[in-house]
Amino acid sequence: MDASSLSRIGLAGLAVMGQNLALNIAEKGFPISVYNRTASKVDETLSRAQSEGPFSLTGQYSPRDFVLSIQRPRSIIILVKAGNPVDQTISALTEFMEPGDTIIDGGNEWYQNTERRIQQVADKGILYLGMGVSGGEEGARNGPSLMPGGSFEAYKNIESVLKSVAAQVDDGPCVTYIGEGGSGNFVKMVHNGIEYGDMQLISEAYDVLKNVGGLSNSELAEIFGEWNRGELESFLVEITSDIFKVKDSLVDGDLVDKILDKTGMKGTGKWTVQQAAELSVAAPTIAASLDCRYLSGLKEERESAAEILKEAGLEEEVGSVKSGVDKKRLIDDVRKALAVFLDRIKKAYQRNPNLASLVVDPEFAREMVQRQAAWRRVVGLAISAGISTPGMCASLAYFDTYRRARLPANLVQAQRDLFGAHTYERTDRPGAFHTEWTKLARKSSAGTFS
Amino acid sequence: MDASSLSRIGLAGLAVMGQNLALNIAEKGFPISVYNRTASKVDETLSRAQSEGPFSLTGQYSPRDFVLSIQRPRSIIILVKAGNPVDQTISALTEFMEPGDTIIDGGNEWYQNTERRIQQVADKGILYLGMGVSGGEEGARNGPSLMPGGSFEAYKNIESVLKSVAAQVDDGPCVTYIGEGGSGNFVKMVHNGIEYGDMQLISEAYDVLKNVGGLSNSELAEIFGEWNRGELESFLVEITSDIFKVKDSLVDGDLVDKILDKTGMKGTGKWTVQQAAELSVAAPTIAASLDCRYLSGLKEERESAAEILKEAGLEEEVGSVKSGVDKKRLIDDVRKALAVFLDRIKKAYQRNPNLASLVVDPEFAREMVQRQAAWRRVVGLAISAGISTPGMCASLAYFDTYRRARLPANLVQAQRDLFGAHTYERTDRPGAFHTEWTKLARKSSAGTFS
Repeated sequence: MDASSLSRIGLAGLAVMGQNLALNIAEKGFPISVYNRTASKVDETLSRAQSEGPFSLTGQYSPRDFVLSIQRPRSIIILVKAGNPVDQTISALTEFMEPGDTIIDGGNEWYQNTERRIQQVADKGILYLGMGVSGGEEGARNGPSLMPGGSFEAYKNIESVLKSVAAQVDDGPCVTYIGEGGSGNFVKMVHNGIEYGDMQLISEAYDVLKNVGGLSNSELAEIFGEWNRGELESFLVEITSDIFKVKDSLVDGDLVDKILDKTGMKGTGKWTVQQAAELSVAAPTIAASLDCRYLSGLKEERESAAEILKEAGLEEEVGSVKSGVDKKRLIDDVRKALAVFLDRIKKAYQRNPNLASLVVDPEFAREMVQRQAAWRRVVGLAISAGISTPGMCASLAYFDTYRRARLPANLVQAQRDLFGAHTYERTDRPGAFHTEWTKLARKSSAGTFS
Repeated sequence: MDASSLSRIGLAGLAVMGQNLALNIAEKGFPISVYNRTASKVDETLSRAQSEGPFSLTGQYSPRDFVLSIQRPRSIIILVKAGNPVDQTISALTEFMEPGDTIIDGGNEWYQNTERRIQQVADKGILYLGMGVSGGEEGARNGPSLMPGGSFEAYKNIESVLKSVAAQVDDGPCVTYIGEGGSGNFVKMVHNGIEYGDMQLISEAYDVLKNVGGLSNSELAEIFGEWNRGELESFLVEITSDIFKVKDSLVDGDLVDKILDKTGMKGTGKWTVQQAAELSVAAPTIAASLDCRYLSGLKEERESAAEILKEAGLEEEVGSVKSGVDKKRLIDDVRKALAVFLDRIKKAYQRNPNLASLVVDPEFAREMVQRQAAWRRVVGLAISAGISTPGMCASLAYFDTYRRARLPANLVQAQRDLFGAHTYERTDRPGAFHTEWTKLARKSSAGTFS
């Protein structure tokens, strides 16, 4: 093969995400080689490259041929299942790769696995990127958000490709070099965690509007559509509106009502919660959304609990549409409650990249203050109606905790000092103090409390 | 040394917990050898054994003398810092130990470390227990709760000692063989996590009573004391009452008001939250209490947030005592809200050891139903007053989620299917389904929404 017939880049792992990203790259004018252990996936991709293109896409059927068909320094994206399959693919490919070549793992990988692999391939002089790819199948084909982290040299080698294939938004392509090590995977993990939170809050808004406000699916489609044209404009709000419009093809009615209320997950939300705990960061909205997914999975237990609590006398009205609710105001309140979370995050960090919390961005703070009354009304109404809003509650509790100069944590410290001699600090002078609480309390109370 | 002069048991690691547990064992009539790397700690323990006893306690100054002073099969408790110090102590002692002897780690150790060490010492024929010890210094000296897990044979070797030194309650000594592997540490970890939750809920009750109800410290001491004589009787409620009685010895006023509101922690709460996530278990109250400890640590950030939100127009009334609150009813409501959590857990599991959740124990369910109105009132009032009650909110959200046969998780599944083709199940037939949501929505809406 002479140099001119070599591909600019390679992609191994041709499940739907891999196929779509390969076709996206080819469509943007970068000749690409593709490989998959199961040959039929290669053929499938080739035929899609014909029908959707024709694009300059070469199918390869062995790791050796695949690697050798790419121009040096080689950049090879792998899109296989996280964990062992990544190690196997790396080992199959690096056998034929040379110093200066790069492996780019595009899966949702645990960032420490990426850091281990960076060390591992470095022995052979091979560079490595762990790259988060967001946007699902549709994004992979037409413009994903890309979060590459690891070797900066490796990033520069494919920067032009990534900038072409990424989603294009007002301020440029959705890709930037994230940083060293597993930072690309880490950012993608947190991104997924935040998405868990967003989805949870939207589902709570749905729940409140439906079960407290009594809104129908077509009203919900309209409301979410309207919100998407205003301050809540976002992919998740847009698709939520779409979902309420879809009719069931099997039985009469709307499809959303027939979907089983058990939520699946793939692990990045769990990792985010565990990492937040590890790093001493409060991430209560994400934790609440993870818990809700777990509880949604206990469908049979929930059905039995509903039955038992009914027998124990739980009034019917808890969990049913409230009479006398001002529908228009409720919709407006829910919009404001949601807007508190979804709005203007980027602008705040542009104003101050070192912002300690969104809460203390002056503009954000002003909006929070303006909207907090609506937020409190929604949560309060939901609580009295027995509709759980764990995400909104957790967010509000975070807000009300973070904004308080003085918390009741002094009592917890006193308890810890009393039973574990863990000592405490004081507000009025430095140092660590220990008190014989019980002895002093019993003494002082001798006369006072009998 | 002839056999009759050998000790029944040994204890290495003579910080306060170790000293107290050794004195407790000696006081119960079991001759004990003690050892510590720093010799002064051995002397300190010997002199306490004289002044608090005299007890049959032998001080040893080398690992070899220490091990050889104990009768076979030897049982040696170690109480050193979790992690590396445990490995070092094991390695120093096992050099002189023999097959059939036992190491008992009494620290708050990560259960997987215990499982690793079980394997490690098994090569030498040495048995191992990881034993949670609860009750702090006071408990160690006068009667701790003990949670031994690991080798059953090792447990039987010291069962009589453990049963004597453990706290004695109505239904016997607070010790039982927990199970194999690291289960003793695991149970202690969860126990600590639950304690985080209890302490958080009590501090929220304090916060609401003080800042919404306007109760003084002496009123709080009285209220918590009263609760401790009723259905809320528990160690934590009792000590809380004591804490409010203690006067400051440095300046005028009550000591609790001078304690810095930053809460320390030692890791078991974090582990509990991470393990719950790992095992797909929702533990929102514990997670909320961990988050609160983290947020309490951000004292300077909180002070600045309070300032900024005031500038952004946050009304003074959020976070201040509510006028027109019925104090007597509030106190009663808070008691009922707390009682929902602290009450009668053991009885419920005695009735049904396989109970899926406390919520579905018929008696518990009945009490929850009777008290939920008060619970909702407290949380609703706190939310409208701007007083954060993350633990009570999270618990209520758990209750309201767990007891619902139908959750809005159907929407989340629809979203996941739309953007990630993750498929969904239906309520009315088996199988996994995928829908082209966007295409169908745009089609169906062509005429309907314009």
